[in-house]
Amino acid sequence: MEKIKIAIAGYGNLGKGVHCAVQQNNDMELTAIFTRREPQTVKPLSNVPVYHVDALLEKKDEIDVLVLCGGSATDLPKQTAEYAKYFNVVDSFDTHAKIPEHFENVDRAAVEGGKIALISVGWDPGMFSLNRLYASAVLREGSDYTFWGKGVSQGHSDAIRRISGVKNAKQYTIPVESALESVRNCENPELSTRQKHTRECFVVAEEGADKAKIESEIKNMPNYFADYDTTVHFITEEELQRDHSGIPHGGFVLRTGKTGMSGEHNHVIEYSLKLDSNPEFTACVLTAYARAALRMNKEGMRGCKTVFDVAPAYLSPFTAEELRSKLL
Amino acid sequence: MEKIKIAIAGYGNLGKGVHCAVQQNNDMELTAIFTRREPQTVKPLSNVPVYHVDALLEKKDEIDVLVLCGGSATDLPKQTAEYAKYFNVVDSFDTHAKIPEHFENVDRAAVEGGKIALISVGWDPGMFSLNRLYASAVLREGSDYTFWGKGVSQGHSDAIRRISGVKNAKQYTIPVESALESVRNCENPELSTRQKHTRECFVVAEEGADKAKIESEIKNMPNYFADYDTTVHFITEEELQRDHSGIPHGGFVLRTGKTGMSGEHNHVIEYSLKLDSNPEFTACVLTAYARAALRMNKEGMRGCKTVFDVAPAYLSPFTAEELRSKLL
Repeated sequence: MEKIKIAIAGYGNLGKGVHCAVQQNNDMELTAIFTRREPQTVKPLSNVPVYHVDALLEKKDEIDVLVLCGGSATDLPKQTAEYAKYFNVVDSFDTHAKIPEHFENVDRAAVEGGKIALISVGWDPGMFSLNRLYASAVLREGSDYTFWGKGVSQGHSDAIRRISGVKNAKQYTIPVESALESVRNCENPELSTRQKHTRECFVVAEEGADKAKIESEIKNMPNYFADYDTTVHFITEEELQRDHSGIPHGGFVLRTGKTGMSGEHNHVIEYSLKLDSNPEFTACVLTAYARAALRMNKEGMRGCKTVFDVAPAYLSPFTAEELRSKLL
Repeated sequence: MEKIKIAIAGYGNLGKGVHCAVQQNNDMELTAIFTRREPQTVKPLSNVPVYHVDALLEKKDEIDVLVLCGGSATDLPKQTAEYAKYFNVVDSFDTHAKIPEHFENVDRAAVEGGKIALISVGWDPGMFSLNRLYASAVLREGSDYTFWGKGVSQGHSDAIRRISGVKNAKQYTIPVESALESVRNCENPELSTRQKHTRECFVVAEEGADKAKIESEIKNMPNYFADYDTTVHFITEEELQRDHSGIPHGGFVLRTGKTGMSGEHNHVIEYSLKLDSNPEFTACVLTAYARAALRMNKEGMRGCKTVFDVAPAYLSPFTAEELRSKLL
């Protein structure tokens, strides 16, 4: 069997995660890593050629699917549309508000190139989106809830680090257990931002810094913390490295709804993820959708797609017969 | 907008559930109910014409999708293949071991008729199957677990009722909480039948019946109870009607897996359902897939399909643009 030739563009945490994920899929091989850095400065996790991203088109024949592992802020809005002209691509674009615009740009390029471009693949957007769609299609009269955490928010950690006197910091988003329970009990609560999540911060202060001032600045920071109940712990750099060096995340998607001629029966659909490594799990989802992208393209499909457009069977290495007999 | 014309074949608990579900979907209308009984003996939940099943072909123009609500033991193996020649159909065939055979038979008919036949739609097989597939495609190295309950098993309740001296009975299947916790903690337990579920029975004995003998017969019944820790409660018919007249069910699908170059990170994917009414929820799933069946057929697809073959977007009444901006 010919293996699916995967290439990675961008070799940070997510790119490394895709590298690991491809190794777990024996119908795939990682043929190349592309970087904007000097290729010789990049140390791949195993022996795979590293090229400068400018060499992408020269390596066209060695790539069935290009997995784009850049950031959503500036990388993917340019890269995905550019590369979708030449490659089947998968990205994890996660700026929810800009998805429609991103879709339009990428669709034009992928249609022109006759390729499949799967955007916004990961867990949210991604697996969580799928669960929101399935649940709302099945339970037509109901309420949706998404909770995130417990997990590290990179954006909030960065915001704390920008405060004067802060040397390092890590921020956890934590769902409020009583709110989750209320949803599960079909109480249909209307939850404010404060009622859904709390924020816990582990901060390393610089020597002699005013800790009370730092704590106050964090807790009152608009958008990031002011609307939440926030706890701040000051710890040492050693403690931060020892206890908070991971990138865990996860969350919950729930839909509760009613059925019957007078809505007399309650139902709860709950999907949850508990992830030790946010980027490695996202990478696993990207890798499964890379398989789907190639298969769909081979069947003659083209254009930009999302997880909503991909029949589940395309994701699995198993045949349709195997899926029906083993997983159905 | 022209509404999707739904017809129901078989008007028991499941058929009534589809009736309720169609009323929650304003892009659909229920145009007819078909029954093997005398049509005038069937009292529909709202004003919908009831016909004998022999009249199905005469009403062809009034039906976009026929939802088959018979049983998996004897009804569906015949009906689905027969009707798939003339109608887009959806069934809830749930005899897991016979799905491949059912698929082949139905596929021939649906291809011949140029129709879509969606089989084994519901929650298991159905939503649970989808979650098994998605989770195993994403976490390639891991373990799968499915737990059922707490819920009423009709088959086990029937088995108790066949015991001499038993007037009525209801049986609940209950997942073992400590087993669930072990799975969630990524301990990868190997669980025996007894370790996964317990069985709780509420039994109404006939006057003067030997309760000790009934209890022993239940607990030692091969296949049904002998491999489980079973509890038997004797109650009155009034108590049974008052406290155990519902048909709740549900369960859990979990996959735990490892990622990283040396499997250093654990991940837990969990999907669960808590359903007040098993047939009404199954009916909601059938109804969403009825929408998909018609859309797929209109796009020129034909043949037998399962939930694995249906792109999620087909299930939702929302447009692709709405889905991308609201649910992704």
